[in-house]
Amino acid sequence: MNLDALFTPRGVAVYGSVKPGKMGAILIDRLVEGGYSPVYAVNPKAESYRDAQGYDSILKIEDHIDCVIIASPAKFVAGVLEDAGKKGVKGAVIITSGFSEAGYHDLEDEMDAIAQKYGIRYIGPNCAGMVNTKWNFMPTLESTPNPGKLAVISQSGAVGGLIMGMSKEANVGVSKFVSFGNGRDLNAAKLLRYFKDDPDTAVISLYAENIAEGREFMKLLAETTKTKPVIIIKSGRTASGQRAALSHTGSLAGADTVYDAAFAACGAIRADSIEDMLDISKAFCQLPEAKGNRMAIVTNSGGPGVMSADASEHTVLTLPEPSAALKDKLREFLPAFAGLANPIDLTVEGTPEQYGKAIETALQDEYDVAVVIDIGTPYLEATPIAQEVVRAAKAVGKPVVSNFKVGNDIDQAMNLLDTNGAPCFASAERAVRALSKVVEYSQLKAKVVDMNRTFETKEIKTDLPSLLEYEANDLCYKYGVSVNHCIFVDDKSKVKAACEELGFPIVLKIVSPQILHKSDVGGVKVNIKSVEEAEEYYDKMEKIGEGKDFRGCVLYHMIDQSIEMIVGFSTDKQFGPVVICGMGGIYTEILKDVSLRIAPVTETQAMEMLKELKTWPLLNGARGGKHYDVEALAKLVAKFSELPFVYPQLKEGEFNPVFIYEKGAMAADCRMILK
Amino acid sequence: MNLDALFTPRGVAVYGSVKPGKMGAILIDRLVEGGYSPVYAVNPKAESYRDAQGYDSILKIEDHIDCVIIASPAKFVAGVLEDAGKKGVKGAVIITSGFSEAGYHDLEDEMDAIAQKYGIRYIGPNCAGMVNTKWNFMPTLESTPNPGKLAVISQSGAVGGLIMGMSKEANVGVSKFVSFGNGRDLNAAKLLRYFKDDPDTAVISLYAENIAEGREFMKLLAETTKTKPVIIIKSGRTASGQRAALSHTGSLAGADTVYDAAFAACGAIRADSIEDMLDISKAFCQLPEAKGNRMAIVTNSGGPGVMSADASEHTVLTLPEPSAALKDKLREFLPAFAGLANPIDLTVEGTPEQYGKAIETALQDEYDVAVVIDIGTPYLEATPIAQEVVRAAKAVGKPVVSNFKVGNDIDQAMNLLDTNGAPCFASAERAVRALSKVVEYSQLKAKVVDMNRTFETKEIKTDLPSLLEYEANDLCYKYGVSVNHCIFVDDKSKVKAACEELGFPIVLKIVSPQILHKSDVGGVKVNIKSVEEAEEYYDKMEKIGEGKDFRGCVLYHMIDQSIEMIVGFSTDKQFGPVVICGMGGIYTEILKDVSLRIAPVTETQAMEMLKELKTWPLLNGARGGKHYDVEALAKLVAKFSELPFVYPQLKEGEFNPVFIYEKGAMAADCRMILK
Repeated sequence: MNLDALFTPRGVAVYGSVKPGKMGAILIDRLVEGGYSPVYAVNPKAESYRDAQGYDSILKIEDHIDCVIIASPAKFVAGVLEDAGKKGVKGAVIITSGFSEAGYHDLEDEMDAIAQKYGIRYIGPNCAGMVNTKWNFMPTLESTPNPGKLAVISQSGAVGGLIMGMSKEANVGVSKFVSFGNGRDLNAAKLLRYFKDDPDTAVISLYAENIAEGREFMKLLAETTKTKPVIIIKSGRTASGQRAALSHTGSLAGADTVYDAAFAACGAIRADSIEDMLDISKAFCQLPEAKGNRMAIVTNSGGPGVMSADASEHTVLTLPEPSAALKDKLREFLPAFAGLANPIDLTVEGTPEQYGKAIETALQDEYDVAVVIDIGTPYLEATPIAQEVVRAAKAVGKPVVSNFKVGNDIDQAMNLLDTNGAPCFASAERAVRALSKVVEYSQLKAKVVDMNRTFETKEIKTDLPSLLEYEANDLCYKYGVSVNHCIFVDDKSKVKAACEELGFPIVLKIVSPQILHKSDVGGVKVNIKSVEEAEEYYDKMEKIGEGKDFRGCVLYHMIDQSIEMIVGFSTDKQFGPVVICGMGGIYTEILKDVSLRIAPVTETQAMEMLKELKTWPLLNGARGGKHYDVEALAKLVAKFSELPFVYPQLKEGEFNPVFIYEKGAMAADCRMILK
Repeated sequence: MNLDALFTPRGVAVYGSVKPGKMGAILIDRLVEGGYSPVYAVNPKAESYRDAQGYDSILKIEDHIDCVIIASPAKFVAGVLEDAGKKGVKGAVIITSGFSEAGYHDLEDEMDAIAQKYGIRYIGPNCAGMVNTKWNFMPTLESTPNPGKLAVISQSGAVGGLIMGMSKEANVGVSKFVSFGNGRDLNAAKLLRYFKDDPDTAVISLYAENIAEGREFMKLLAETTKTKPVIIIKSGRTASGQRAALSHTGSLAGADTVYDAAFAACGAIRADSIEDMLDISKAFCQLPEAKGNRMAIVTNSGGPGVMSADASEHTVLTLPEPSAALKDKLREFLPAFAGLANPIDLTVEGTPEQYGKAIETALQDEYDVAVVIDIGTPYLEATPIAQEVVRAAKAVGKPVVSNFKVGNDIDQAMNLLDTNGAPCFASAERAVRALSKVVEYSQLKAKVVDMNRTFETKEIKTDLPSLLEYEANDLCYKYGVSVNHCIFVDDKSKVKAACEELGFPIVLKIVSPQILHKSDVGGVKVNIKSVEEAEEYYDKMEKIGEGKDFRGCVLYHMIDQSIEMIVGFSTDKQFGPVVICGMGGIYTEILKDVSLRIAPVTETQAMEMLKELKTWPLLNGARGGKHYDVEALAKLVAKFSELPFVYPQLKEGEFNPVFIYEKGAMAADCRMILK
């Protein structure tokens, strides 16, 4: 994908009125002020504006033009692209709105067709433009950022503008910014692919309100996070929550949870807000990779030290105390009143040298990452301490974040930290949060899912919207999922053989596509202990099924009861099959204690799902209870999660319950709905 | 409590070296630069510094001195106060450290005795000073704030300094700031009392690492929040969590939960961080009281609108759609493409007039509070919109917060909003969070607990560290708690009468202080159906109890099983008795689904505790289940929570289980531990 004409154009033409306050003029202002040239203005009266010579047609411009910036009314955009194509233009920034987002799909189709004809790659329509800081190229309506290593992809122009504006406050530099608007050509996924290989970009951020083609996006994401961290704000959590799926399993798989699962599976970091995204991006832009999660807090004041410790809870960070040996080492250069637990509290008297040595010693010996806090006073300098922090962090080569506040030179100290690899945050808590995400990335990266698993697909032959119980059971059984195998008999004469094969006691159930709630009509008989009894109940079922499309009966060996789990899959609109598991009954229904992943999952992932459950201790021998065979259950979950890929017709599937034993796990009841 | 000499002194003397860089000099710098006079310097060589005339004794100063600022070494402080007392000084700011915090309790006692002798009120020792902006009085080592209505009380000097520094960034003005350090005289509670009546203070904030004398503090807090919001940062959540209590009930009542409960019960708002505290304070300083929780979002851009909606989840705010009637009204002045759901999206073309009218109409007709978002562009003005927001908010008199970002005059617009009652926040999410706390305060305030309930106390006579089961049962029964009443018999001859009184079936248990686990030794017999059987088992118990201080047996009528709840109280170090309840078994033990309150609770509070449980739906007929008698359970919890007040010797008590029925609730097993 060559986007040079778009990102590093040689020659740009701006379409749109150049009257004061009009879009064309504003865009030329931004381009000229950004330092880009040559810029041309194309408008009916061939009006020039600032450095931009005016033409009434792009074809009259003698110079080479790589890219057009379009703010003309929507109905003219196709014509503009036609001309641009003839001129040899290969990139376009289409600011103009009034396309598919306003219901004018035909205008957008027409425009896209022409762009394709000429091989023009474009962003928009209905976008706020883009920025390439290195190329001094700023065709955007929004604020422009300082140069740096963060790429910003935003679906929303306003949010893009917010991010640009706030990036300056946060002292985070930007490599490129793209507001992709309707994303007809370049969308989130394609831009991700571009930035993956962009040498000027070290960290990628994305603001999205929805993700189209979730699986494709995930593949790219998984590929990208191998080399570059990706931080995503996905808004609309509330609205997403309303897209509740219809079935029981679906309703638990609230869509926002699906986004969480998709991002985590691909090693991406989800941010809560723009501030959070910029904090995390700042950390990634500046820090070396984390090799572990042991955090040291080095501080000169107790309160913020305690608040940092609080902030590390519920993150991947741990806060171990220094060993006796490390404490001895620290004592050699720290005064007696310094706190040697973690936080390492140098107290208000902490000197630059003590800071430097404490950081160096702690990180060299026992810690993986550090947060350094200096709360100074208005009459003291902070820069000497900042210099030592920077020196120590560089010497050790491990991630160090900082929170410096107050001091007669605080701005200088903060900037020094920000630009020398020990980034400074608005508070100790935010420093810790950002650091935790750097550590989390290194953990997630190590277990990014294989998005390229393929399965040989098979067809299900049925006229019904869902499988009959025995069909679903059979399908699972043959695929090797641990189910309590059943035998379907369509005639009383076959009952005996089935009983003998299964062994008593036996459960017998009526089979009819018209009878959904079998128990309610007396369609289930448990604890059958003889062939005669089984045959007698076959007759009874036949009577119950009269006139209701009676197909026969299904027989099971009656298995032991145990802890009941639910395992299911459903099909998410964006991401396709997702798998859930949880303890049955009120645990899933009332307490919502459910784990969810994008399907398929491996046994390792399935085990993580189980460990995530609040009820996990109950499976794992809590308070002297039994240890259940979680490996067998994980295997069952993993195998079950493959079914919608092997049988693409399947929309939903559920085992309720699955019994988990001290040895083994077995699904007892199965339900499958087709698309 | 008259603290005029401290907060509004006429004449101040500073003790401490006035050599450059020394504390005395720094303090005089701050006082002089703050605009205060007259300042005197007291030091052995009678050195003057800047405007401060030097003396070697305060007694030689002819002018009146109300307050001394002390930075002399700890061993001299008592002497300083002695002199000051003779001079008629009634206030002191004791910066000096090296007292109780360093183990020198005697020095602190001596100093305090002298202060008391002369009626000197003081802050510190070991503090960073104080500020009264209105009096231009800034004897502090920390940053000084802008004037305003927020009082800041900080246990930590560094955190106090952070708050002062960050208050300027946040555009929050401060009335008074006190770093109370060791808090020997003026501590959090006393300062709260002072600020409650301080006419210059509208909002009170507190940073605390621990709260001494929790009940006294709660009383003051409950009193204060009637008229002024109090926002508290209580750090050390992690460390607090480690202070796990010994007993089962205690271990569930993790200390941080106790702080949460104490603050909420008194109508105080707990903040997560300094940024959060300043956001919330800013809202309180500017906004009128909230009359309800219906929030309108008025925005010119979709993304931040969605993020605001997301941020309102898990708060007390609701986000209803406008009614059809209101939509009609809005349509009269908004264009067709404006979004009329909630968010009310004026789109990028939103004019100042549309903002103003939309806010006014929405708040007049259907909404209680609003967040207004304007994400502009660098070439447009934001001030005209800000002016309309301010006008509309004033016209309606309801709380309006804002998030304005980007614009060629953005600083002016933000300042206008901040200083005219529609405060502007760093992000829409933070605006919503701050607004939600203003609404939460109005809700909490309406149900602040009565901290002045008193109970007639009674004595328990026993030599044992805990009550015997029947004693605990009796105590509850007589106090009117719904327990399954038992009869204790110390002789076989009394068994018959007991059986007749209770009715069969009967449970009989051995009574011996030496047998704690009765079932393990065969000391419990259930389902006894005749007097003969009961007598037979009395004999058996007597045998089992041989040589083990056998006291007799206790008999119960055997009650029906039902849903099992746990109800308990324990004694918190800071706050005294707390009460918990939850569903029994794994719900409390594994899933930690427990409600906690500071005891005693009313029935209304107890009902709130039940509704807070994740398992509440199970009590309340979830999925067609039974409706249990939650009123009866609430009554039991409330009554039980009074016991540690009636019997102050009680340290812990637990009912496990309490059966809750469709009609009634009854405790089946009771345990009480004495202090």
